Amino acid sequence: KINGERLWDSLMEMAKIGPGIAGGNNRQTLTDEDGEGRALFQTWCEAAGCTMGLDTMGNMFARREGTDPEALPVYVGSHLDTQPTGGKYDGVLGVLGGLEILRTLNDLGIKTKHPIVVTNWTNEEGTRYAPAMLASGVFAGMHTQDWAYDREDAEGKKFGDELKRIGWRGDEEVGARKMHAFFELHIEQGPILEIEGKDIGVVTHGQGLSWTQVTITGKDSHTGSTPMPMRKDAGLGLAHVLELVNQIALSHAPDAVGAAGHIDVYPNSRNVIPGKVVFTVDFRSPDLAVIEDMEARLKTGAQAICDEMGLGVEFEKVGGFDPVTFDETCVTAVRNAAERLGYSHRNIISGAGHDACWINRVAPTAMVMCPCVDGLSHNEAEEISREWATAGADVLMHAVVETAGI
Amino acid sequence: KINGERLWDSLMEMAKIGPGIAGGNNRQTLTDEDGEGRALFQTWCEAAGCTMGLDTMGNMFARREGTDPEALPVYVGSHLDTQPTGGKYDGVLGVLGGLEILRTLNDLGIKTKHPIVVTNWTNEEGTRYAPAMLASGVFAGMHTQDWAYDREDAEGKKFGDELKRIGWRGDEEVGARKMHAFFELHIEQGPILEIEGKDIGVVTHGQGLSWTQVTITGKDSHTGSTPMPMRKDAGLGLAHVLELVNQIALSHAPDAVGAAGHIDVYPNSRNVIPGKVVFTVDFRSPDLAVIEDMEARLKTGAQAICDEMGLGVEFEKVGGFDPVTFDETCVTAVRNAAERLGYSHRNIISGAGHDACWINRVAPTAMVMCPCVDGLSHNEAEEISREWATAGADVLMHAVVETAGI
Ligand SMILES: NC(=O)NCCC(=O)O
Ligand SMILES: NC(=O)NCCC(=O)O
Repeated sequence: KINGERLWDSLMEMAKIGPGIAGGNNRQTLTDEDGEGRALFQTWCEAAGCTMGLDTMGNMFARREGTDPEALPVYVGSHLDTQPTGGKYDGVLGVLGGLEILRTLNDLGIKTKHPIVVTNWTNEEGTRYAPAMLASGVFAGMHTQDWAYDREDAEGKKFGDELKRIGWRGDEEVGARKMHAFFELHIEQGPILEIEGKDIGVVTHGQGLSWTQVTITGKDSHTGSTPMPMRKDAGLGLAHVLELVNQIALSHAPDAVGAAGHIDVYPNSRNVIPGKVVFTVDFRSPDLAVIEDMEARLKTGAQAICDEMGLGVEFEKVGGFDPVTFDETCVTAVRNAAERLGYSHRNIISGAGHDACWINRVAPTAMVMCPCVDGLSHNEAEEISREWATAGADVLMHAVVETAGI
Repeated sequence: KINGERLWDSLMEMAKIGPGIAGGNNRQTLTDEDGEGRALFQTWCEAAGCTMGLDTMGNMFARREGTDPEALPVYVGSHLDTQPTGGKYDGVLGVLGGLEILRTLNDLGIKTKHPIVVTNWTNEEGTRYAPAMLASGVFAGMHTQDWAYDREDAEGKKFGDELKRIGWRGDEEVGARKMHAFFELHIEQGPILEIEGKDIGVVTHGQGLSWTQVTITGKDSHTGSTPMPMRKDAGLGLAHVLELVNQIALSHAPDAVGAAGHIDVYPNSRNVIPGKVVFTVDFRSPDLAVIEDMEARLKTGAQAICDEMGLGVEFEKVGGFDPVTFDETCVTAVRNAAERLGYSHRNIISGAGHDACWINRVAPTAMVMCPCVDGLSHNEAEEISREWATAGADVLMHAVVETAGI
């Protein structure tokens, strides 16, 4: 069994870096705070006797040697970056849970056949740089590195430049590593495990995602002196399209969700009718056909709305991944571990995207989930209990060690 | 007749300060550019033989002496600040049109009985600091100066501090001046004069305005893993309320308008359901009862929408003025001037708010309007012809000189 207290202390220590304004964290990718968090993780890994690898996307790989020099490593990890108003566990639990495995194996003097590598994937959240899971996506060959380097944040700063600026652009070729398997522990970010009183979610699938950035173009004009029939109000167009997004998602209930989290209005002045609105529609479903249907209906519907209102509209796909089926052997290892340790468990579909969803394309992969309070995540009030964290890391360790062999 | 070429050259010279990105201007109040524009205006006024007064709200008063030492001055002016993506004429025409009167009177060696004072009112636009017409409002006793000094921009910088920073906080007590009359020349900012081919709008009334800042509170949560029924999506609440605003305004057509130009979404991340949205609803009508009805229906309707969705909602009135009836004698002076000069004209209601609307409460006041292309304003593409500018300033001069006496 892992040391739950040590894991919890490390979570709280990491949470001191990039504190939020309401008890959570703001440690967005490639900020100075991200750099600080990485440095702390590296210190801990080195103290646990690991060597640290760093690739050209800033992905970090802390390696504990195995007994078989030929054996490919078992990888385990998640991400240390957070949302602007994020929680202390989303991602972090998976990285520090991996580190806790190594510390526990050290304590017990256990050597595994395959090496174990704990990974911190760069820019999982996708807030500052769309899309989410950017660096694991490049690792898995889904995007080119050049394209990733060219992504821009809201201030026009490029991903590649910011990675270099914070000092975490490595030399190792991204994606060159071969994996025996990959495991990721993550909080559920939804309500199911807590409601059903289960300790562990055995993640069999991940739902797919589509991010469409919509730009509606109207005409800036005076809110007082422009007669109603002459208005080209991009803000009103936004309202109609947001209603449509909600209707489309509900029409596939309960197998789909949809919303817009990002909305920018221009010029954003109280007495100027919005001339432009840019927003991102997030649609998800475990069923690819449903995602494709939602995307298509968004485009047709928003086009019709804007045509009728005399507005221009453009669509750009800024993120997306297909639904995922995780590796049966790895999933079974997770289920067996939960069973063996006596934790209650159920199969679950991940509602969120994870680095594991991309890595599943290049290595046998599975995920372990633990509950979170009220299913709340991407919120500074995100919370889990020590017991949940401990159970999750326990199951993670047993699945990893079974896969790595003793 | 005024010198139309000189007026136009001055307009173009002023437009070089704080250029926009699309041919217009970004010379927002209390920015360095505002300071530069003020300095240029002062230089021109002093070259025209005026003395410059400056009050504690940064209002500028360029005085040309009259022949009767007892006579109260006739005031004329508007504002030099612009929208973030504003035009070259909104406000500026009224200030430089006033200056052109003084230059013309100098050329012709004409002395008026009453002094003439050309005024630049601070923060008419209300973009950076709500409400609009802030400094003329303090002058007219509608707001206290302390309250005005405490207004904050989006970055939390206070009006009073920024006024001092740019070096245009004067010593003269605001509102102490007594006026014989006030005249303001302004572009229409609407389409009526151009469509009807009239040179001059004789402004008899100004419509009233109500700015309600609405804050909708939901719950930040994950766009992927939060089930639809558990969402508290403040962005969807925004959509419903924007639809309501449009319906309310249309229900009073053609005597009312309504829209939201300012919308801020928090935390504004693609995969976070908006936990908070703050936006400002702008309702206008020439009829006070209509404004009151719209305000009341907004509150009741938005409350019902948010209650049903489990969202919180708060309302704050951040700006407002009642419909205005301008002074009959001053309005007649404008109409007579247009008639005498042979310009086609019609009575018109101002759709926008103007400093004249506040000054009308403390002095006999009227406005002159000239057409603008396509009725477009609060847009960098705002345009007028030289002939329109010349006609407007001509009528302004004749109305002012008739009122000031020779
Ligand atoms: N786990 C998580 O919140 N990932 C961010 C990517 C997503 O939006 O699903
Ligand atoms: N004239 C003008 O655009 N004034 C700004 C105040 C308003 O919104 O009406």
